[in-house]
Amino acid sequence: MHVKLIPVAAAADRDVFEGTTAVVFDVLRATSTIVTALAAGYRRIYPVAEESAALALAHKHGYALAGERGGRKIPGFPHGNSPLEFWPGDGKESEALVLTTSNGTGAIQMASGAARVLTGSLLNARAAALAALKEGRDILLVCAGTGGAFSLEDALGAGFVLAELIRATGETPPMDDLAMAAYRLSIFYGNDPLGGLLDSRHGQRLLALECEDDLRWCAQLNKFNIAPVFMHDHIYVP
Amino acid sequence: MHVKLIPVAAAADRDVFEGTTAVVFDVLRATSTIVTALAAGYRRIYPVAEESAALALAHKHGYALAGERGGRKIPGFPHGNSPLEFWPGDGKESEALVLTTSNGTGAIQMASGAARVLTGSLLNARAAALAALKEGRDILLVCAGTGGAFSLEDALGAGFVLAELIRATGETPPMDDLAMAAYRLSIFYGNDPLGGLLDSRHGQRLLALECEDDLRWCAQLNKFNIAPVFMHDHIYVP
Repeated sequence: MHVKLIPVAAAADRDVFEGTTAVVFDVLRATSTIVTALAAGYRRIYPVAEESAALALAHKHGYALAGERGGRKIPGFPHGNSPLEFWPGDGKESEALVLTTSNGTGAIQMASGAARVLTGSLLNARAAALAALKEGRDILLVCAGTGGAFSLEDALGAGFVLAELIRATGETPPMDDLAMAAYRLSIFYGNDPLGGLLDSRHGQRLLALECEDDLRWCAQLNKFNIAPVFMHDHIYVP
Repeated sequence: MHVKLIPVAAAADRDVFEGTTAVVFDVLRATSTIVTALAAGYRRIYPVAEESAALALAHKHGYALAGERGGRKIPGFPHGNSPLEFWPGDGKESEALVLTTSNGTGAIQMASGAARVLTGSLLNARAAALAALKEGRDILLVCAGTGGAFSLEDALGAGFVLAELIRATGETPPMDDLAMAAYRLSIFYGNDPLGGLLDSRHGQRLLALECEDDLRWCAQLNKFNIAPVFMHDHIYVP
């Protein structure tokens, strides 16, 4: 089992996903929000790249609708991209949520060429690691990045999943240098994941947008024991 | 002053260098070898991308010649790319050395669009940082990478230079997330730079090629107080 890290999903060659298990990270905030909404009771989440397509899908089926661009809620959308909008849930299983975000939803669709696509975040690092291990394939840690550039918070999410994977197997798998760097960063920030998120430019931007509670939420390690899967057109907990 | 890290020089857009001070890193081993050879007394080093051009230049002027491909000395070349081949020097200033390597010499030439091009390594991290500061421009930390991919050892070199820069100014400059990651990695590996080099795939490859002494050499922080400059076609100590 080899582990590779893709620093920016949009810049990746599609061939690289073939036959792998991909774990996708948009820690601030799409994949953290997806994990939270599923843990809160949503049964399916539809990640949609285009705003208009998201609107149409939600309207057609009466699904809930959430969307963000540049860190802000899309005007007219009932929900933005804050995980706290979906927690706590009402305890009942809600039907479905359509979500469109600047980077994360595109990254998930980019990874769809993989044999299995999992959703990763700090919130479910251990569960994502164990689910990826169980697949038995090479693993791609797929970072959404921000605006086409490497983002520290996604690499950190990947590093925490890798750390859980190494803890579970007791072995360090062969990995590329980006994966190794992410793993070492997860050790560096191990006692202060929030510090890691605050070191990122996107974390600083969200702080300026008064999303500090979101940052605190997304920095929680292993809060949820679910490993959501993307298949066909939606994400669910198998 | 902004700081950005270019993870793989060959993949960079040439425009990005314009008006900046570039510090180029090929820690294993081209820039470490360049710094060592200049500290040992060579007056000029000509980095040349092509093997045949290196041969022709050295032959024409009677310069010393060194070259490496895939971590090994080029057959027929008098020197490979080990810094230990040039240390200790004979105490006299040797004339010039022509050097061609797999990644580093190309990276230096790629950076030639910058207003100033400096040569960085762990060996001269502080001197490179102070020289870059003195220029007063935005700073690009330019990693050669290995075979077109991110390499941990170059990011680590960049991180140590950034750490020296922050130490010297007492301020953390605005920087992109890759630069921040490199800076944090330099703190993580601060007491064990050799461990960082050994965590890299290229470090492991050199270990397999019995270059452990080279790794130990390249892991020495601030051994030399020189900041070599690349200008026109050669590198020298101003």
